[in-house]
Amino acid sequence: MTAHGRILENHMLVVRDGRIIDLLPEKFGAERYAAGLTIERPSHVVMPGMVNAHTHAAATLLRLWPNPSTALGPDVDISPPQRRYMGPEFVEDGVKIAVAEMLKSGITCFGDQYFYPDEVGRVAAQQGMRALIGMPVADFESPWAKTPSEYLRRALDVRDEYKGHPLISTAFAPLGVNSLSDDTLRRIATLAAELDAGVMMHLHASAAEIDVSMSRYLRRPIERLQGLGLLTPALNAVHMVELLASDIDLATQSGLAITLCPDTHLQSDVGLTGVSALLAAGLRLSLGTGNPCRNSLDLWPGVRLLASMKSAGSAMDAWQALAIATHGAAGALGLDSEIGTFEIGKWADLCCLDLDGPATQPLGDPLYQLVRGGGRDLVSDVWVAGRHLLSEGQFTQLDWPQVRAKAQTWATRLNQLE
Amino acid sequence: MTAHGRILENHMLVVRDGRIIDLLPEKFGAERYAAGLTIERPSHVVMPGMVNAHTHAAATLLRLWPNPSTALGPDVDISPPQRRYMGPEFVEDGVKIAVAEMLKSGITCFGDQYFYPDEVGRVAAQQGMRALIGMPVADFESPWAKTPSEYLRRALDVRDEYKGHPLISTAFAPLGVNSLSDDTLRRIATLAAELDAGVMMHLHASAAEIDVSMSRYLRRPIERLQGLGLLTPALNAVHMVELLASDIDLATQSGLAITLCPDTHLQSDVGLTGVSALLAAGLRLSLGTGNPCRNSLDLWPGVRLLASMKSAGSAMDAWQALAIATHGAAGALGLDSEIGTFEIGKWADLCCLDLDGPATQPLGDPLYQLVRGGGRDLVSDVWVAGRHLLSEGQFTQLDWPQVRAKAQTWATRLNQLE
Repeated sequence: MTAHGRILENHMLVVRDGRIIDLLPEKFGAERYAAGLTIERPSHVVMPGMVNAHTHAAATLLRLWPNPSTALGPDVDISPPQRRYMGPEFVEDGVKIAVAEMLKSGITCFGDQYFYPDEVGRVAAQQGMRALIGMPVADFESPWAKTPSEYLRRALDVRDEYKGHPLISTAFAPLGVNSLSDDTLRRIATLAAELDAGVMMHLHASAAEIDVSMSRYLRRPIERLQGLGLLTPALNAVHMVELLASDIDLATQSGLAITLCPDTHLQSDVGLTGVSALLAAGLRLSLGTGNPCRNSLDLWPGVRLLASMKSAGSAMDAWQALAIATHGAAGALGLDSEIGTFEIGKWADLCCLDLDGPATQPLGDPLYQLVRGGGRDLVSDVWVAGRHLLSEGQFTQLDWPQVRAKAQTWATRLNQLE
Repeated sequence: MTAHGRILENHMLVVRDGRIIDLLPEKFGAERYAAGLTIERPSHVVMPGMVNAHTHAAATLLRLWPNPSTALGPDVDISPPQRRYMGPEFVEDGVKIAVAEMLKSGITCFGDQYFYPDEVGRVAAQQGMRALIGMPVADFESPWAKTPSEYLRRALDVRDEYKGHPLISTAFAPLGVNSLSDDTLRRIATLAAELDAGVMMHLHASAAEIDVSMSRYLRRPIERLQGLGLLTPALNAVHMVELLASDIDLATQSGLAITLCPDTHLQSDVGLTGVSALLAAGLRLSLGTGNPCRNSLDLWPGVRLLASMKSAGSAMDAWQALAIATHGAAGALGLDSEIGTFEIGKWADLCCLDLDGPATQPLGDPLYQLVRGGGRDLVSDVWVAGRHLLSEGQFTQLDWPQVRAKAQTWATRLNQLE
């Protein structure tokens, strides 16, 4: 994903100590390197691991809440089960399921926003998965913290805990732009600048959010964040559906990144055409899935949607859609110097897809055919920092039967809660 | 799919001579039936096979035409390779790939519109797949026929050839509403009525189609078809994107079926919100994929899109989206008395999905979770008329390595054509 449309055929990727040390034609590779282990994937494409730049991974447990056949709208209230069960065990079991699902989808890194981020990081690292854990800051009481100050104190503790970790990085994750006071948001801005930390938050996700901001603060959310010092390249602004031209100008000037969760666009009046304006403005785009109790964590449907946008205005080609799900999403998490492309020195976070099946034959342009006809079923292998976590479709380490048994215990518990 | 939201747990489906003869709780089944073969799928859902109500299956070969990374728009011109290679061999090889892809996606029947429909039917039947083959009628010369009269003559021959076939049925498939003369369309209407045959055609697929019709015939395409006697319940109107309220009224009064190819909606100014109006009008809805050189033949992305539509207006729930892809699509092909639901006497066309994986755990409502997080990777088994064509993800009969080798030969040939 370093140059538009570039595909290297019959190449060898050389990995040492978890990092890419070379990328060269296969015929030269055998001469130059005495590999301890050689893995051949002759009918496959190897691409940078996909990055899901916005998840609430633990909420995967709430897929079955409430009886969802009657609640396909965006407004499922998941607070009752969260109030009842939120805690380290809930987060541990939910994140394990999410990691399993993401690995099977070719995802090697996720940017998470939830309570107990320390637990999210612990589970991800234990499974060998890369994650940016968002340290929540809220004005409401939760089992994680009671006051904005306590949220911030715990955030700094979590940040210290994971400092220098090879797989886990951290960012501030304010929950709810309208509910947080100017003072709290300003403190986050100051801390993020001092610590060189990222900030991830939902922004301009709905018309209602804009209305509340206008009546409470007399300005649009993005204008308010600008005034509070949060509009910087370190901001991962998630959703960004409801936008005026002036909002897009502010976003462009600030250098922030936008994580698209395409289902949110589909649910809006704007629709996917809204993405064209972001593309035309040259904004840094990224891809995520958001709430797993409404969506799967699989990025392939979103990639396909981005490349299917109405092409009046700025259309996205297959390469761009895949770049957004890899390099773009890595950038939104502040990790693009470490992952997202095949460049010497970056982590060997790789996803490998088999193109020999009926959905991608006959094969012409792998980029185009992956985006239109691909999907997680083609994912054969995943490596994170050089560790082979999924091999020919099988987990090498994650104990799925055990994780599933836990999931089923939660299903019983949650179904008893009315 | 016989009653809204209905799910039968721990049930047994009893099949004899390719048809469903009973559906009853598992505990009673063992007492009442001495089965020659019992297949257990304890963590799975079994649903009616999905029906792709609009394909051009042979065009699967043209996935790689032209260098598609530069042509993601809707207007890929596939006529050069079709002119050069169209013939029985092209159709045979293309349809085999398409059948392989569809079986792996849980599709048990497809409604096809292409040249050499006799060949399409032969290949489908040989692979044990159900198909409605559309007999093309055009005003342009092709290797299949030279004049509308010759197209019609060949259509009747194909119809005779497949009369009473257990897997293959036929319909007229006029190619291009604007290019066909009133006289030819009237002859199709008369023949369809006399023979009790279906008619499948693209209709109101683009603004350009409407414009041409207005300037050439002084009426909108659907108005013209009404005048020519084609607006009947036997019409499978494909796409139906560009619609006025008066068009929807005409469609509703006529009882025609509409096959949605959701990508066409996405590419239009109307977007998916156009589907809400069709749903609100109570129209018979069906699902297809259309051109496989622009899309995969997998129905799961379309099911997901239908259930993700903006919910202002008429939203679709998970059951409705799945019903459209099974019973609804069967109805558009005139086959809903034979397939599309689990009812005694219908063909045992079944699709089985494993819900034990990370994308669908923990499990609450299988309908909802299949639509939001499901996909072809969950499809474990497929039966058509009781024949087990896909078993635990493996073809029982289709020789994929051989079909793939043919696909690769075509890739070489097509890449030489500039």
